[in-house]
Amino acid sequence: MRSLPIDQLAVGDAAESRKTVSETDVYLFAGISGDFNPVHVDAEYARTTPFGARVAHGPLTLSLCAGLLGTELPGLGTVALSNQIEYLAPVLIGDTITVRVEVAALDPDRNRATMAVTWTNQDGTEVAVGSMVVKPPRRPVSI
Amino acid sequence: MRSLPIDQLAVGDAAESRKTVSETDVYLFAGISGDFNPVHVDAEYARTTPFGARVAHGPLTLSLCAGLLGTELPGLGTVALSNQIEYLAPVLIGDTITVRVEVAALDPDRNRATMAVTWTNQDGTEVAVGSMVVKPPRRPVSI
Amino acid sequence: MRSLPIDQLAVGDAAESRKTVSETDVYLFAGISGDFNPVHVDAEYARTTPFGARVAHGPLTLSLCAGLLGTELPGLGTVALSNQIEYLAPVLIGDTITVRVEVAALDPDRNRATMAVTWTNQDGTEVAVGSMVVKPPRRPVSI
Amino acid sequence: MRSLPIDQLAVGDAAESRKTVSETDVYLFAGISGDFNPVHVDAEYARTTPFGARVAHGPLTLSLCAGLLGTELPGLGTVALSNQIEYLAPVLIGDTITVRVEVAALDPDRNRATMAVTWTNQDGTEVAVGSMVVKPPRRPVSI
Repeated sequence: MRSLPIDQLAVGDAAESRKTVSETDVYLFAGISGDFNPVHVDAEYARTTPFGARVAHGPLTLSLCAGLLGTELPGLGTVALSNQIEYLAPVLIGDTITVRVEVAALDPDRNRATMAVTWTNQDGTEVAVGSMVVKPPRRPVSI
Repeated sequence: MRSLPIDQLAVGDAAESRKTVSETDVYLFAGISGDFNPVHVDAEYARTTPFGARVAHGPLTLSLCAGLLGTELPGLGTVALSNQIEYLAPVLIGDTITVRVEVAALDPDRNRATMAVTWTNQDGTEVAVGSMVVKPPRRPVSI
Repeated sequence: MRSLPIDQLAVGDAAESRKTVSETDVYLFAGISGDFNPVHVDAEYARTTPFGARVAHGPLTLSLCAGLLGTELPGLGTVALSNQIEYLAPVLIGDTITVRVEVAALDPDRNRATMAVTWTNQDGTEVAVGSMVVKPPRRPVSI
Repeated sequence: MRSLPIDQLAVGDAAESRKTVSETDVYLFAGISGDFNPVHVDAEYARTTPFGARVAHGPLTLSLCAGLLGTELPGLGTVALSNQIEYLAPVLIGDTITVRVEVAALDPDRNRATMAVTWTNQDGTEVAVGSMVVKPPRRPVSI
């Protein structure tokens, strides 16, 4: 776990993680969010949609970058100010998603970093792209 | 479950839901997202932060609007194009969050609706505000 | 979410929902209920039974009608008085179950509605049939 | 784990188990069943109801007897034919429920046992009473 104040960040710094999105993830996410849209939990219905199968909830995809921001880059002590995500392609149950966060802009006066995020599946298709504004820790934090 | 094409939507139409965010929600969300930031799952650490206690993940708060969009307004058959959320105050374990989605703008030519979303806690504090662009169903869909 | 007092109900009114029962559902249900019967969680054992594979818990199937009764028909403010269910065929992991609730009888003097419920799988096989007695809300309720 | 054919059962045979129903149980049950009735997951709303606090789903209470029937009495190899339950008092999050199953009637010709079930909370209040018809194993089964 890292904890990087803004003076230890440079535009272009990046971190990645990867996860296979399981049926369990999607079903638990339905339970947390209360989103029982049949496109997520009804295989018969999902077959009739353009996606052809059950898809992950959009905010589930978004959430896959949260750990990177909060524990790696900038890391511990970071406060999320805003999230922006554009969905480009569905994430199906069983897809393996690589998420990459990269420092896109730094505003030391206001202690803000803008992180560019991409989500890519196992076929190299970019499934989402986003931008997260965060406040890095004022000084390194540890547990 | 409703399913409203764009010609059945009007600016100002709104829907609401409410949920108490439980420790279970936060812990399962950590497991799904891989975000084990101690501010979410370490009560001792969280006590030392400005929040004073474990907080919910930002995308968990975001996700509370997903069911409304996908099953109520516009409802079944809706496709999410983008999410934007600004975090204004922490959501602590045990907070009861009211989420309100409202039609803010309609673009019938491109079949797009912009939904304004607010998240408010039990004390009336607005904890987040956002904007979701969706494609309503071309025609009503049913399971 | 609806909330219908008994004078807004008519015999024959109905609502439906559908869900694919996942392995996650069955395993979490085992954890909640404490029912670790190997027919639910032991694939090797289940293979030796007449079912041939792990089956969902009966009360899990029953539970799929609960949201319809409590949030759709009669909806918010409804109080469950009794449940009766007859199991006709196994629900296997991966089956997609359509649950249908229908107003079967109304007793306005005692404010009671009897709801007939059927559970049907993706092949059209009726896997269970039941009858739920509920007290509809005295007046419409909202959150 | 036991496995008792009908000739090893006698009217009056009984078994018991006990569990504190947690918030986790109720939240996961909402996710499995799709029942997000605010009386289960919205503490603010629940406060305004006659129950005064969030209550467990009825079929969750029912499910607490399933393990006893399927692994203790009659035990392994038992097939559930029907469930009947009457709800007498709410089960609140944190309540500790004792469930007792007792052989009420035996029909050796059709290989059927009727089990009387009671659910009692920590204050001795009977919260539910029910009757389960099962087919005991033809011969003892083991894993």
